[in-house]
Amino acid sequence: MRSVSVIGVGETRMGRFPDRSLRDLILEGGDKAIRDAGIGKKEIQALFMSNYNAQFFCGQGHVAPLACEVLGLGNIPALRVEGACASGGLAFRQAWIAVASGLYDVVLVGGVEKMTHQSTETVTEGLAGASDVELEAGLGATFPSLFAMIANRYFHEYGNVRDEMALCAVQNHENALLNPDAQLQKRITVEQVKQGFPVADPLTVFDCSLISDGSAFVVLAATEVAQAISGRRLVEVIGSGHAGDTLTLASKRSLTTFDATVHAAGQAYAMARLKPADIDFAEVHDCFTITQIINIEDLGFFAKGKGGLGVSQGRTAAKGSMPINLSGGLKAKGHPIGATGLSQIHEVVTQLRGEAGDRQTGNADIGLTHNIGGTAATCVVNIFRGR
Amino acid sequence: MRSVSVIGVGETRMGRFPDRSLRDLILEGGDKAIRDAGIGKKEIQALFMSNYNAQFFCGQGHVAPLACEVLGLGNIPALRVEGACASGGLAFRQAWIAVASGLYDVVLVGGVEKMTHQSTETVTEGLAGASDVELEAGLGATFPSLFAMIANRYFHEYGNVRDEMALCAVQNHENALLNPDAQLQKRITVEQVKQGFPVADPLTVFDCSLISDGSAFVVLAATEVAQAISGRRLVEVIGSGHAGDTLTLASKRSLTTFDATVHAAGQAYAMARLKPADIDFAEVHDCFTITQIINIEDLGFFAKGKGGLGVSQGRTAAKGSMPINLSGGLKAKGHPIGATGLSQIHEVVTQLRGEAGDRQTGNADIGLTHNIGGTAATCVVNIFRGR
Repeated sequence: MRSVSVIGVGETRMGRFPDRSLRDLILEGGDKAIRDAGIGKKEIQALFMSNYNAQFFCGQGHVAPLACEVLGLGNIPALRVEGACASGGLAFRQAWIAVASGLYDVVLVGGVEKMTHQSTETVTEGLAGASDVELEAGLGATFPSLFAMIANRYFHEYGNVRDEMALCAVQNHENALLNPDAQLQKRITVEQVKQGFPVADPLTVFDCSLISDGSAFVVLAATEVAQAISGRRLVEVIGSGHAGDTLTLASKRSLTTFDATVHAAGQAYAMARLKPADIDFAEVHDCFTITQIINIEDLGFFAKGKGGLGVSQGRTAAKGSMPINLSGGLKAKGHPIGATGLSQIHEVVTQLRGEAGDRQTGNADIGLTHNIGGTAATCVVNIFRGR
Repeated sequence: MRSVSVIGVGETRMGRFPDRSLRDLILEGGDKAIRDAGIGKKEIQALFMSNYNAQFFCGQGHVAPLACEVLGLGNIPALRVEGACASGGLAFRQAWIAVASGLYDVVLVGGVEKMTHQSTETVTEGLAGASDVELEAGLGATFPSLFAMIANRYFHEYGNVRDEMALCAVQNHENALLNPDAQLQKRITVEQVKQGFPVADPLTVFDCSLISDGSAFVVLAATEVAQAISGRRLVEVIGSGHAGDTLTLASKRSLTTFDATVHAAGQAYAMARLKPADIDFAEVHDCFTITQIINIEDLGFFAKGKGGLGVSQGRTAAKGSMPINLSGGLKAKGHPIGATGLSQIHEVVTQLRGEAGDRQTGNADIGLTHNIGGTAATCVVNIFRGR
């Protein structure tokens, strides 16, 4: 399999956009990425679309040819990939495989979701479909309740990290202040998080990621042709991993170590021939604050049970030794489900190019993205290096 | 890219199964394919799932890890691929790319849909999401109405083929009589089709494919390792193509030639170094009878405008020179959306192995599958050869 690089990225601002349609979001993000790559549309040979549930939220299935038509890409092959909140990472990985295999030289990967026109109850129902509907959602479990159980189990096994969870939200909000694409640009405090509207104990509304509209796109090319067609600084995909776990929480080996993350990260590190300490910064899947703590442990950045300490020591903050979610993360940048995994890649590529403006991190040679779906029933990890 | 072969196939009977759940359908089809391949579950390295819309029909998204859990496949990577009624063909193609690339040696591809517990109105609404919801479905267009427009345009351009359309249904029903997995095993006549309950002129209910529950699975392996792990006669993937077209009918270059089919078939023929006349038999996407006539022309089996003649001359019948839909097709075998593309491959592999029993075709060296989504906004064509 041959080397593959990102040559273009583009995304919309994340937020509540009652007057913007699905096709409008696709058009903005897709056009930005193609223009960023500096290529013509005729050079794009395939489209990989990520979307969680436009059929439920907007009545629209078959999103890939819709995107193709909106972007004027002609008769190229297009398909949609879905793995709940990990859909973006999955679509990216399928595109990477297709280019690495030699089948295509240049492809576009996009993700989109439009949710905010629905009530929170309807959105919660749509999202709950990413859990086991017979054994979880159908019995009343929502994602906040499932992750609240995970948090309580974590407290039982490793001690209470309520303050550290709150601090994850505080740090992500802090980062989002400097990201013009972020949905929320508002400083918050640990006390505000803890005193927030209770959702599922111990989670308050400030522990939960946002409901968002938005799109994010990435142009991928075989590294051997990328330099000839694009003047941009290449960002190479040096590691990729994908693993799964049971859909149901009750069947998992552990509630506090996500095996899908451990396996996917292991694959990505092995392919990149790197260890966790070699990673300079990462975008990790902070659907809930407890998830961020578990993730930074499962990714090997901190020992098991010590993720909260890393957060409270400021090591995960923007100026820390392992900056996490410089974009603001799902918590403050936003979480338009199908776009999320690609927006993570947008951030890492922007940082590795040194184009992140006020939020540019100092040490940016190698970045990692971590994207999970459901209660980590799907996980995709990618590692990128600026060239 | 290396050679890839099918080493196992399995499917449920297609039909109305009010007492069978999504997981039950997955379990039967998946287990059959794995047992057919004669391999252990531990040899399966990834799962590619096809499903159109379990979230809408059953409230269940994130179907890939559900299938993984049901089938006991552990932490392997799993993802869902969607392209409306072409989802099965797309998932198969993604699996083929991943194995051909060298990333995996053995993978499972599965498709499932459970629809019949919903009313016909609800199913029609769910399916309409595969058209453009803003410009088509939202204005009242359903798929029968879209394909009725296609039929009327075909009549305008090439002459009336009402009887030939009816004969497609008659031939597919005839074939299904010999397929134990078929939903309908009932002989019909041209007059019955034409006098059937009107759906959208000229289409009657007998011109429309079925609403079905069911699953179909395929095990794929790199040809170089397939012989070592499976005692089954290999069926090699010798050609594959994937192309798209606009989602909206109004934007298409032609209503009577599906460009997505022409492009996808062209890719598959070029890869296989074959021409249409080299194909011995084919499963083509007969969502409506007019679609079957257009498809057999676009695939190059008959000249444009002459597909109906081929049907009326009996050339597409089981004993004809180009047998079409020996399984009974979507019309009589059934059309569980996500499973359809894989059930087509199930039939072609079964024929190429010489295991089709009473419906075995005499000349079965090379078979083709053709799977479309929407009004041919997505098309996947695969060509297989028995070894």
